[in-house]
Amino acid sequence: MSDHLVLFAPSGKRGRFASGVSVLDAARSLGVDLDSVCGGRGLCGRCQIAIGEGEEARLGITSRAAHVSEAGEVEARYQARRGPLAAGRRLGCQARLCGDVVIDVPEDSQVHRQVVRKAPSERPVAVDPVVTLHAVEVRRPDMQDPSSDGLRLIEALKAQWGLSGLSLPLSVLTGLQATLRQGEFLVTAAVREGREIVAVWPGVVTRMAGLAVDLGSTTIAAHLCDLTTGAVLASGGAMNPQIRFGEDLMSRVSHAMLNPGGAAELTRAVREGLDALVGAVAAEAGVARGEIVEATLVGNPVMHHLFLGIDPVELGAAPFALAWDGPIDHPAAELGLRIAPGAKIHVLPCIAGHVGADAAAVVLAEAPHRDDAMTLIVDVGTNAELVLGSRGRLMACSSPTGPAFEGAQLTAGQRAAPGAIERLRIDRDSLEPRYKVIGCELWSDEPGFDEAVGPRGVTGICGSGIVEALAEMYLAGILTGDGAIDGALAARSPRIRDEHRSFTYLIREAAAGGQRIAVTQHDVRAIQLAKAALHAGAKLLMARMGVEHLDRIKLAGAFGSHIDPAYALVLGLVPDCEVGQVEAVGNAAGHGARIALVNKAARAEIAALARRIEKVETAIEPEFQAEFVAAMALPHATDSYERLALSVPLPERRAGRRSRRRA
Amino acid sequence: MSDHLVLFAPSGKRGRFASGVSVLDAARSLGVDLDSVCGGRGLCGRCQIAIGEGEEARLGITSRAAHVSEAGEVEARYQARRGPLAAGRRLGCQARLCGDVVIDVPEDSQVHRQVVRKAPSERPVAVDPVVTLHAVEVRRPDMQDPSSDGLRLIEALKAQWGLSGLSLPLSVLTGLQATLRQGEFLVTAAVREGREIVAVWPGVVTRMAGLAVDLGSTTIAAHLCDLTTGAVLASGGAMNPQIRFGEDLMSRVSHAMLNPGGAAELTRAVREGLDALVGAVAAEAGVARGEIVEATLVGNPVMHHLFLGIDPVELGAAPFALAWDGPIDHPAAELGLRIAPGAKIHVLPCIAGHVGADAAAVVLAEAPHRDDAMTLIVDVGTNAELVLGSRGRLMACSSPTGPAFEGAQLTAGQRAAPGAIERLRIDRDSLEPRYKVIGCELWSDEPGFDEAVGPRGVTGICGSGIVEALAEMYLAGILTGDGAIDGALAARSPRIRDEHRSFTYLIREAAAGGQRIAVTQHDVRAIQLAKAALHAGAKLLMARMGVEHLDRIKLAGAFGSHIDPAYALVLGLVPDCEVGQVEAVGNAAGHGARIALVNKAARAEIAALARRIEKVETAIEPEFQAEFVAAMALPHATDSYERLALSVPLPERRAGRRSRRRA
Repeated sequence: MSDHLVLFAPSGKRGRFASGVSVLDAARSLGVDLDSVCGGRGLCGRCQIAIGEGEEARLGITSRAAHVSEAGEVEARYQARRGPLAAGRRLGCQARLCGDVVIDVPEDSQVHRQVVRKAPSERPVAVDPVVTLHAVEVRRPDMQDPSSDGLRLIEALKAQWGLSGLSLPLSVLTGLQATLRQGEFLVTAAVREGREIVAVWPGVVTRMAGLAVDLGSTTIAAHLCDLTTGAVLASGGAMNPQIRFGEDLMSRVSHAMLNPGGAAELTRAVREGLDALVGAVAAEAGVARGEIVEATLVGNPVMHHLFLGIDPVELGAAPFALAWDGPIDHPAAELGLRIAPGAKIHVLPCIAGHVGADAAAVVLAEAPHRDDAMTLIVDVGTNAELVLGSRGRLMACSSPTGPAFEGAQLTAGQRAAPGAIERLRIDRDSLEPRYKVIGCELWSDEPGFDEAVGPRGVTGICGSGIVEALAEMYLAGILTGDGAIDGALAARSPRIRDEHRSFTYLIREAAAGGQRIAVTQHDVRAIQLAKAALHAGAKLLMARMGVEHLDRIKLAGAFGSHIDPAYALVLGLVPDCEVGQVEAVGNAAGHGARIALVNKAARAEIAALARRIEKVETAIEPEFQAEFVAAMALPHATDSYERLALSVPLPERRAGRRSRRRA
Repeated sequence: MSDHLVLFAPSGKRGRFASGVSVLDAARSLGVDLDSVCGGRGLCGRCQIAIGEGEEARLGITSRAAHVSEAGEVEARYQARRGPLAAGRRLGCQARLCGDVVIDVPEDSQVHRQVVRKAPSERPVAVDPVVTLHAVEVRRPDMQDPSSDGLRLIEALKAQWGLSGLSLPLSVLTGLQATLRQGEFLVTAAVREGREIVAVWPGVVTRMAGLAVDLGSTTIAAHLCDLTTGAVLASGGAMNPQIRFGEDLMSRVSHAMLNPGGAAELTRAVREGLDALVGAVAAEAGVARGEIVEATLVGNPVMHHLFLGIDPVELGAAPFALAWDGPIDHPAAELGLRIAPGAKIHVLPCIAGHVGADAAAVVLAEAPHRDDAMTLIVDVGTNAELVLGSRGRLMACSSPTGPAFEGAQLTAGQRAAPGAIERLRIDRDSLEPRYKVIGCELWSDEPGFDEAVGPRGVTGICGSGIVEALAEMYLAGILTGDGAIDGALAARSPRIRDEHRSFTYLIREAAAGGQRIAVTQHDVRAIQLAKAALHAGAKLLMARMGVEHLDRIKLAGAFGSHIDPAYALVLGLVPDCEVGQVEAVGNAAGHGARIALVNKAARAEIAALARRIEKVETAIEPEFQAEFVAAMALPHATDSYERLALSVPLPERRAGRRSRRRA
């Protein structure tokens, strides 16, 4: 009997094959998930398998004869070039069946093998990118039978990989002839969605990279990933060069409206900024631009439109109509991104006029729709984007918090950057502050602080710093319940000062080279307005959803990562929730972009979900106004607030939460 | 009975409909070819019909009651705005059925109505472009139900026109919001192949334009057509700006090979040249660039590649591999053509490495595959492209004629331009020449010639002039059968001169401001080589096809249009054929581009045909060499040559042919 029983582990798939059939071919015909880029030429090493020697009995195979062919010349050449195979490993394309056998497919040889997780809190996602690699030998041109190089490449991909109906965009075609000759007509094609060739490289190529971009109003973040493993190769950030046209989004929209060509200028600036950042990140990772075969991009609606070259003017006024809200796949080159010639940028869908692709990415990353817990996700930027819901139903809105949480428009406010106060405590008796600044490990009352801070000194107070400052001021009695700085305390502490007919809490006198840092009554009002907006947005969603209790709050984004959840509750930034259930989830938008980069199903998931999410427009909701007014007061007293503020020493509580997340 | 019998003429389609159904809706449900752009709003006037009063009896309709509703307010408004409807005409969307009726659909109300024919020789083609116009009312944005403007446009096109799965490219999307508001949410979309929106204009638009381009090595020709009627609105030509990098194709290929960035430079030059020409042609026709929704382009393989941005280096040497030979649809904007934002350029397929999209267009225009006659089509440029065949089978090759037929590399040669000799006769006794130059109606021996030619004088001799000169020299005995200028005649005429050890025939002494014009032995050899190549290519195809006789020869292109078929036969440029069956077909490549522009089925026809045409590579055919050597001799004596040269006075014969074509 020339037929041999083959069993693949861990899938358990089995079948009978004739002698001499390669393990790779057997796997393919059974639908076993065994990778290959070179198409069985013994070049890529992606189809490595192990012979499951110990399992025969369990699986009912009794033969003890040689199960597969001996390793031959091809595998010797492979090892000479690429280093020895691990013990027991064979190339599946070279090992040919000689008897009944159990074949182990190790995880690193499976196509859909890896999971992407930068932090334990991140949900695991399988690596299954839209682009796949296919090495092919292309027939050489022949005068007797003239046909184009492009057509012969497409024929080869059909014959050798079963890819039919492939398109070859002009951007790839322009470099094809040189590549074919450089590779002596052995080339590797990167194919997108099994339909479109996005890159062709000479020889057998087994690595490809992808790029996930989070386009923020202030900063652009880019993550370069290995698309075959999902690993982050390098990450980087850069200031959004549009800042020179206006710090906040609405001033950029105004720039676009008031200046002929203004929108085009903003588009050019952000595209150039992104392209430069990609160059830097690629250089850091040692990846050529041409190896980057796919990108994903998220951003708020204004950034989304400006990046795509759409004038954001309609987003500046009611009814806030988006030009387009669905996902977009567009050639990267046309958007100013110099990566692989035919690479596309997948732009995630927007949810509504003020709830952008960044919020969609946050949903993808945090997956409230896969959870029974009623979860509120808050992403604070110039506007706060809020998503509320659970498995059954999701709602989203945005709240006009203004830029106060980003440190803007405050007396001593600044962006989170070295020199900015980010933590602050106030002694309940002396009312003296102690604080930490970004870039320095010491507290201000510890020896050596001034030296450690260096000549730049303490430059201001950032968004998370102002939240702590106000919460501590309240806990120390400096702030009253309606947000007034209590002038009576001026008698008790020189830090309470009567200035310009209102009171100020002085944190730090101007020192040489330093800056006077204080919280004024105006600053308190600005933060009150911002937090009231945020709180009211959340309450509006809860009312619409018909829930009075939140199981979980997730704080996303830079501000959300830096604020202390306990202080957020003290100030009433978000509705009441068990403090242990309030967590910072970091750059969830960036994580969502990475998920969409490495997993094609995630794109369909969020596209469908974005349509399903119910949009709530705060601007036209009378309820929002009522909630907004109610949320101005400080504190928004609740049980949990009392527990938190009066009975639990905050720093310990925080430490406990942190260490739990590390576990 | 509320049902009414409706009969549509000329289609003969009939059906029964309820009272009040509009004629347009009835036509649509019966599949009657009745146009409409505004979707039944009474705005576009494209659905005009007439009530066939006289035909009732013949068609069996006996009712004499009012057949359709009276014209109402909508038609009154239409006439106020657009002028009165012709007598008996109604708007089909407004006329509602009230009784049995015969409806005449006039030709100008049919979608596939017109035929494109610039000359009687051109085959008629139905107007059925890839782009169609659709006016739609788009739902306004609403905060209560946020959705993007783009999505609502697509929904409207689906609901009002049944167009599903439409895509909206970013290039169109960027302008959409402004257009929607300008049109107060009534817009007209130009939709390509029922799949892709290529332009959106405010209001109801009933006109769209298309562009057919013939990209020659020397000149670029562009025809701007009304895509709804097929009419040519304006045509124009411009020098190919690549000429500054080399007169002939091979010197441009060399430029691309020898200079870094040389190919890109050539690409930029030709794209800029075309875009400028389009601007000029559009201005002449009073058409905005944004109204041009589609373009077609043909050219030889080198021009094809350079225009697309593909380095033509592989076309410079065997095996002459094309990068791509299939048809291409590519966004015009990316190819430097500023027309409607989402417009595409359809580039016709190439046939082989030396037989380009221009030859494909010639085949489309002359349609040898629809004819039983064995036809040879010759398109002479720097290379001659030849197609031979009939209904059953087509073959193509190119012949390396070199640039002599274009007047290049001849002593007094020049391109066909004012001042160039294009006609020449030699007195059989005195050996004195008389000639005509381009731009002047007089022959050189007529009174007033020098004044008519003007100060520029006679500047040279163009391709068709040199063909006549040589043929006349042969007929007058100045040239021997092997192409030698007979020095013995120097005794008989001072025009035969012994110069540089070979003989020259002097046509015109250098006059003040003019140039000495003569035919040297070198010139004769250059033309002999060119005509031998052409002749040998044709013979090679005939041998492969297994035919010894041609039913018809068509001379395409500028050179082919200017040479006299009789002289072409005298010199043996083409194999023997009945002189009346040799005809100049003008710019057949340009005509083919126009056909592909206005008729979408023609694109599929030539794409399929280009694959089927058998390619013959002259460079590797031993037969070609043999034919080439044999074809050097002058004349290639045949029966028809003898008839032609000895018994038929040539000028009369020509005049006869011309007037027959005009009839």
